[in-house]
Amino acid sequence: MARIGLIAAHGKTEAESLAAEVIPWLEQRGCEVLNEDELRGGARPDVIVALGGDGLIMRVAHDLPDIPILGINVGRVGFLAMTERQHWQDALQEIIDGRYEVQEGPTLEATVFRNGQAIVDAWAINDVVIRSGMQLIDVEVYIDERYVNTYPGDGMIVATPQGSTAYCMAAGGPVLAAGVGGFAVTPICAHSPIRTTLVVPKSALIELVLASEREAHLILDGVPELELQEGDVVTVRDGAHRFRLAVLEGMNFYDAFRSKFNFMIRPDAVPTLGRRGRERP
Amino acid sequence: MARIGLIAAHGKTEAESLAAEVIPWLEQRGCEVLNEDELRGGARPDVIVALGGDGLIMRVAHDLPDIPILGINVGRVGFLAMTERQHWQDALQEIIDGRYEVQEGPTLEATVFRNGQAIVDAWAINDVVIRSGMQLIDVEVYIDERYVNTYPGDGMIVATPQGSTAYCMAAGGPVLAAGVGGFAVTPICAHSPIRTTLVVPKSALIELVLASEREAHLILDGVPELELQEGDVVTVRDGAHRFRLAVLEGMNFYDAFRSKFNFMIRPDAVPTLGRRGRERP
Amino acid sequence: MARIGLIAAHGKTEAESLAAEVIPWLEQRGCEVLNEDELRGGARPDVIVALGGDGLIMRVAHDLPDIPILGINVGRVGFLAMTERQHWQDALQEIIDGRYEVQEGPTLEATVFRNGQAIVDAWAINDVVIRSGMQLIDVEVYIDERYVNTYPGDGMIVATPQGSTAYCMAAGGPVLAAGVGGFAVTPICAHSPIRTTLVVPKSALIELVLASEREAHLILDGVPELELQEGDVVTVRDGAHRFRLAVLEGMNFYDAFRSKFNFMIRPDAVPTLGRRGRERP
Amino acid sequence: MARIGLIAAHGKTEAESLAAEVIPWLEQRGCEVLNEDELRGGARPDVIVALGGDGLIMRVAHDLPDIPILGINVGRVGFLAMTERQHWQDALQEIIDGRYEVQEGPTLEATVFRNGQAIVDAWAINDVVIRSGMQLIDVEVYIDERYVNTYPGDGMIVATPQGSTAYCMAAGGPVLAAGVGGFAVTPICAHSPIRTTLVVPKSALIELVLASEREAHLILDGVPELELQEGDVVTVRDGAHRFRLAVLEGMNFYDAFRSKFNFMIRPDAVPTLGRRGRERP
Repeated sequence: MARIGLIAAHGKTEAESLAAEVIPWLEQRGCEVLNEDELRGGARPDVIVALGGDGLIMRVAHDLPDIPILGINVGRVGFLAMTERQHWQDALQEIIDGRYEVQEGPTLEATVFRNGQAIVDAWAINDVVIRSGMQLIDVEVYIDERYVNTYPGDGMIVATPQGSTAYCMAAGGPVLAAGVGGFAVTPICAHSPIRTTLVVPKSALIELVLASEREAHLILDGVPELELQEGDVVTVRDGAHRFRLAVLEGMNFYDAFRSKFNFMIRPDAVPTLGRRGRERP
Repeated sequence: MARIGLIAAHGKTEAESLAAEVIPWLEQRGCEVLNEDELRGGARPDVIVALGGDGLIMRVAHDLPDIPILGINVGRVGFLAMTERQHWQDALQEIIDGRYEVQEGPTLEATVFRNGQAIVDAWAINDVVIRSGMQLIDVEVYIDERYVNTYPGDGMIVATPQGSTAYCMAAGGPVLAAGVGGFAVTPICAHSPIRTTLVVPKSALIELVLASEREAHLILDGVPELELQEGDVVTVRDGAHRFRLAVLEGMNFYDAFRSKFNFMIRPDAVPTLGRRGRERP
Repeated sequence: MARIGLIAAHGKTEAESLAAEVIPWLEQRGCEVLNEDELRGGARPDVIVALGGDGLIMRVAHDLPDIPILGINVGRVGFLAMTERQHWQDALQEIIDGRYEVQEGPTLEATVFRNGQAIVDAWAINDVVIRSGMQLIDVEVYIDERYVNTYPGDGMIVATPQGSTAYCMAAGGPVLAAGVGGFAVTPICAHSPIRTTLVVPKSALIELVLASEREAHLILDGVPELELQEGDVVTVRDGAHRFRLAVLEGMNFYDAFRSKFNFMIRPDAVPTLGRRGRERP
Repeated sequence: MARIGLIAAHGKTEAESLAAEVIPWLEQRGCEVLNEDELRGGARPDVIVALGGDGLIMRVAHDLPDIPILGINVGRVGFLAMTERQHWQDALQEIIDGRYEVQEGPTLEATVFRNGQAIVDAWAINDVVIRSGMQLIDVEVYIDERYVNTYPGDGMIVATPQGSTAYCMAAGGPVLAAGVGGFAVTPICAHSPIRTTLVVPKSALIELVLASEREAHLILDGVPELELQEGDVVTVRDGAHRFRLAVLEGMNFYDAFRSKFNFMIRPDAVPTLGRRGRERP
């Protein structure tokens, strides 16, 4: 018997009315359905079904870490929430039948040292960012206790594979596919042409030092965590938690990448090796 | 007793005269020294000492794969040949004493299928490249049998970590530090703004299809291998060989990256966390 | 009475059958229609109507320079040929009525000096390119007799505004809108992070020196012109000819840029300041 | 008789002690020397000599617009202040003798419209920037009343040629050499691969619309001017003022670009066409 957690985006009518359909549907099929309160109370389901967009998936993964999440997209763009609303019944049937894989991604643990004392310890699913206020800042980068460079600019991004399509790609960095054992370290608007992303192994100790007096913030997954001071050392490394997505058979990162981001360069191109990407002759 | 292979760059007087110094020096310290003929005959040393530049290291790694190489730089730029000429005695003493680590990188196996038949099978240390002649070509990319996109442009690069600082970085791609479990797939001058590098796991099956009638070549480690035809499928995957460098204590990829490539953005910047990068307070 | 030149893409049935419709239509409206032979014989029309794609427009502009061209798109992508096939009657009526503007762009004159002698003098509408064969080349760049840098890589592109959306943009360079008084000098895959495009004034003297023994070609508008030798100096400057497009009222570079290149980042975005770009409240 | 304005960086001992040397030196050579108070009172010199770094030049050009400035570098990096401290006597003698050119660059006038009312009107020498606070914003771009695109990201930069080496280049944009009749419009970390800079003619009307509720600021030459609100329209166009530098014979933008920014890709490269860049055989 499957134990399914169910969380709908707060205050989103469409998500809430979908929840009202989903709950009896699951119960009729013999599932135990856990609501948000029960989940927060410590109940552990096999999978959490999130009715909302990518923002909801991120919130759930933060609050209830390590549990596989299936996102049903009730929103504008669903890159992580890969199941479109109208296919919810098929998708949930696959979950009930156990026909899914768990795609696991790393998280990042960030610790801020000020005058030798750890003053903040937090973790992120997508990225750990040092970002300047209105003025240019210098950030020193060290990998495994070796000095890499001092980057003047708008700051620095450390991204996981699942976070690489967000700020990292926006800043000119690469996309790391799921399963790549590494993190991307990408300078933001470095006032230098030397702004190549460095991809480091998952085992790396990444240290970022704010080497300017100017305003700068530590931002985790888009949420400001702390205003930094000159000399603060932010260490970033592979975190204890794992980001887990329940992936159904038809789901495909590359399809999503192409269609959700409008990345189909030639809309009329027909792939030679198969028409739908996942079925090849 | 250490068995040391010794290969000097052909026709380079400076390398050959250094070899004449190195051989007796090693023998006086009880080493067995194997020359290029013996090595090609199948003799297996602990380490091959290459007297030359990065080109020589690449040649040796191709001809005598899997054996750790220490490069002593007798040339212009030594990025892989990290030991400068004047330090050869200290470096070789460390080799004799076993005070070195072996840094291991993957290789790439490339197979070309034409009309369903494998017509070429070859391998590369740095990169497998499809590159256009004078005119724009279309290259389709598939990862693990899933269609990614069709890229019109000058071609496509698949690079290993050790190859990422070469053509991959030149084409706008990231640098993958040693130890990253992945390969970088980077379009060359894609006639589209959609040219973000995709870093894929080491286990990935990468398929590149030439989807144009125009001239294009398969190039491995900078050496042309084959003129491709429309419809040719080039599969690229983790190769059987390993690229091994003997790394001494003081060697440092990030120092080399900064100094050899003139990547010191602010020549006057002093790293906060230690003066020499590898010694921290 | 309007004098209209008419040129259809050779061997393209669709273009030729459209020509058979267009000619009597124009003559019925009192136009003098000049065919390709008459045009090549020196007859000068007010406008040349080109039935084909962007390739045809480029060919016509080369062979019959300085005459305004209206392209009717009978092909896949018409970026210069901005009138779609089904709107040909409206478009030609506007030409007959004189309701069009002539958008004028510069051309590039390229001269190759070998051992102090000018050996080739040619001109281009889009771009003058030095491009490597299989191996990396060094290109020195000088602007107005001042040394800029030596770029190791795949070569160098000098582009006009109308050419900037082609190879220049593909190599990471900017798009220059029509009317910008300048040319873009963009390195191709420079093996250095220092690959920022330099936009120089239209009056600039650009000199490119091939500083390598390796194979390299001079390519004008995508057509190979000459195999270069080490030490060859290619001077590039504003050419004598002008590239002229007849632009109708509804035509819009930015619309074309967005739609033809699939550059609509957010397909659902609705511009605040007006729905169709050219009509504002 | 030359009228020379003299302004030293405030509170910078080195600049002030240099001023104490320069004033009698100029007076002995028959110059009228105007101090900062006199200049602010409306006195108009031929040239203002600024003793300080690039920051001082920017401040002087803002406060006393349109007057040619010669910067003597008393600071870390002098890109605009191209005369090094030790050469001050030679440089000032050239000014006295009239042996200089005035290099003139445009400025940008920015007006903010809120609910149809102009609420701010200001101008900039280098760049007009809309920059997000902690979260992604949408900026719509229009050129000459035509819609270009909606860019989600960190904002948008409009840069003059003299400003292009600053934030514009940092964001991946091109460098516009002095004399290019255009402005560079560069998205900052666009969350889309479509982030190509658009260079528009100097005559263009550039309109930027903040299409998000989130925090964003208008920043001119690095100085915050206004917190923007959703729907605010920022128009940017060629300003009334001119940025004027007094340029001596030996000064060279390309040399400065290469040396000040450490842009010498191959430190050992020797230009073929002349040894010092400005002297050719």
